[in-house]
Amino acid sequence: MRLNEREMVSLIRRKLGSVSSLGTTIIGPGDDAAAIDIGSGMALVLSTDTIVENVHFKSDWVSAYLLGYKSFLAAVSDIYAMGARPNTSLCSLGLPTSRTTRAFIDELFDGLVKAGAELGVETVGGNISRSRELFISTSVTGFANADTIAQRSGAKVGDSIYVTGRLGGAAVATHCLLNGRFCESDIKDAHHVLFARCASEEMGLEHPIATRLLKELFMPTLRAQESLALSEQNFCTSMIDISDGIGSDLQAICDESKVGASIDVTALPLFEGAEVLEMPGESGLLNPLIQGGEDFELLFTVNRGDESRLRDFFHKKGFCEITRIGRITGAVEGMRFVDASGSGVSGIDGFDHFAEIGEDLGV
Amino acid sequence: MRLNEREMVSLIRRKLGSVSSLGTTIIGPGDDAAAIDIGSGMALVLSTDTIVENVHFKSDWVSAYLLGYKSFLAAVSDIYAMGARPNTSLCSLGLPTSRTTRAFIDELFDGLVKAGAELGVETVGGNISRSRELFISTSVTGFANADTIAQRSGAKVGDSIYVTGRLGGAAVATHCLLNGRFCESDIKDAHHVLFARCASEEMGLEHPIATRLLKELFMPTLRAQESLALSEQNFCTSMIDISDGIGSDLQAICDESKVGASIDVTALPLFEGAEVLEMPGESGLLNPLIQGGEDFELLFTVNRGDESRLRDFFHKKGFCEITRIGRITGAVEGMRFVDASGSGVSGIDGFDHFAEIGEDLGV
Repeated sequence: MRLNEREMVSLIRRKLGSVSSLGTTIIGPGDDAAAIDIGSGMALVLSTDTIVENVHFKSDWVSAYLLGYKSFLAAVSDIYAMGARPNTSLCSLGLPTSRTTRAFIDELFDGLVKAGAELGVETVGGNISRSRELFISTSVTGFANADTIAQRSGAKVGDSIYVTGRLGGAAVATHCLLNGRFCESDIKDAHHVLFARCASEEMGLEHPIATRLLKELFMPTLRAQESLALSEQNFCTSMIDISDGIGSDLQAICDESKVGASIDVTALPLFEGAEVLEMPGESGLLNPLIQGGEDFELLFTVNRGDESRLRDFFHKKGFCEITRIGRITGAVEGMRFVDASGSGVSGIDGFDHFAEIGEDLGV
Repeated sequence: MRLNEREMVSLIRRKLGSVSSLGTTIIGPGDDAAAIDIGSGMALVLSTDTIVENVHFKSDWVSAYLLGYKSFLAAVSDIYAMGARPNTSLCSLGLPTSRTTRAFIDELFDGLVKAGAELGVETVGGNISRSRELFISTSVTGFANADTIAQRSGAKVGDSIYVTGRLGGAAVATHCLLNGRFCESDIKDAHHVLFARCASEEMGLEHPIATRLLKELFMPTLRAQESLALSEQNFCTSMIDISDGIGSDLQAICDESKVGASIDVTALPLFEGAEVLEMPGESGLLNPLIQGGEDFELLFTVNRGDESRLRDFFHKKGFCEITRIGRITGAVEGMRFVDASGSGVSGIDGFDHFAEIGEDLGV
């Protein structure tokens, strides 16, 4: 019997549940990261993320530098999603013999070390194996106050649902790459600019759309300060990073919190430039916006009574934009996508992404 | 320019070294595991290990159950090699679509959870990706007293070199599997017996050689209590687990400690049953004994003045056998293999295992 994604996760979690009495685990399988009590009110937070060639990326899309950079970011994002401060990482590399060149390893680790330096995370060890396809498995640890860790399970009926930043840029970039919508020189230019950004040259709006979209895919901005504030200031009742897409990630919050959700699709903040992708049908860009992840924005829920305090705090601190996109409902209502008038929107589907580029699944 | 194993590790360690000022790292890349100061004299110890199909195992050799069990053990072994107590793990799985069956995942996690329960280590999270070849990347954390962590770098000229248990069983088992020396029913019987062992039926000497060898390969005994005693009682000046083979692992101690070593090959304790493999030439079983790893015994160095205290302690506690196999020499002497009379032994070669079954390399 072949299992789909949800059935696999459910089976594995049941299995792992059977040893949970052994340790001093605060949070086990089922969240962005696990958390272990280490005394003095502090928790060790830990998570792992893997990218696989031809599943999460194609090697002609991305330089070794950006691969190292992006794989590192994606793994650290899960630690921020708990409202924790990341500190160390381990890198386990599966390397085809053809990639054992000095240039490849040099570039890959330049990207990885650069991302680590920007985020204050040190790679303290790792492992290399030969493999037929390239994969990078990154485990990250961090620390948090045990009583302010943000979990997926805390959303309450009536809470508002928020996202940071803008969505869909990475999904549209992936779509354009998959469908040959970027020409080779666009990709080359983008990599050149992104590499230059690392030499502290900031990238502005004047750059071509292709570059802005590819930056969103390969060098997304993690919401570090924002995530820490959301947890430490007790703003959020639940939080997750949008790595799999709002549809899938909000479903995870609903599952863990045993609630439903209503999303106003007209409120979803679209990445500037995403409209370059013209999608047929009534739902247009909604599917890439809702199913596409990889922007690594935060999705979180807030008690209505805390909303003005939240907005004031973010404004005062000069944090990124946040947008209210819906509200938490009762579990029986499930997850619904509605327009501004509250009517259901059709043509939005599919969360089982164990069959396409971008599949990946936290246990 | 294509790099060999040592060149890759050296390049990566130079790269990673450049951010080492960021954290509170006690031990960075280059040991069995890294260690981070977490206050109160305690260190968080962390390590990662990956097994890849057709590199570390072939799927017709091993059941999903033993795969889960062995991959878990191999990862935890690195934590014991630091003299630390393992507590949690993360499992990152690369899964071909053909393996997404309930039976496969069920068995794999049964093995993994069984190993975890035996060792007191809880799997607190993980990740699944699709991949063409199966891989399992396991990250493990543990705790140790910051001032008694056993490192590779502490060996001093004149120290005695010891190993726990007996060596070569796993290497001979691998050799027999690779060369069709076990018939299918031997392998089936062995898996049956090993599975039964998990239901608390202890395996004795009366079992056929094939079963004993395959147990050594797939369910080796980790030296948990012994490793903790070696570090906490300050017996060892350096320690490593024998995962790559004595040749490679002792070389790592020599490199990190900036010393040489002289090994008396006649003192090497051969696994009972390993002699079933008749090897041609003067060196006979020496190459599998020295190059083959996977027994997960401990290799450690001891100040001569501490040897009798060490032997008494191990005897009193009923710990496993330990054998003195040589001594640490000056760096200029390099690593030498000698016979009981001190004459060099020829015909022993090769540590760059990035080209054969069993390749794997800690950073």
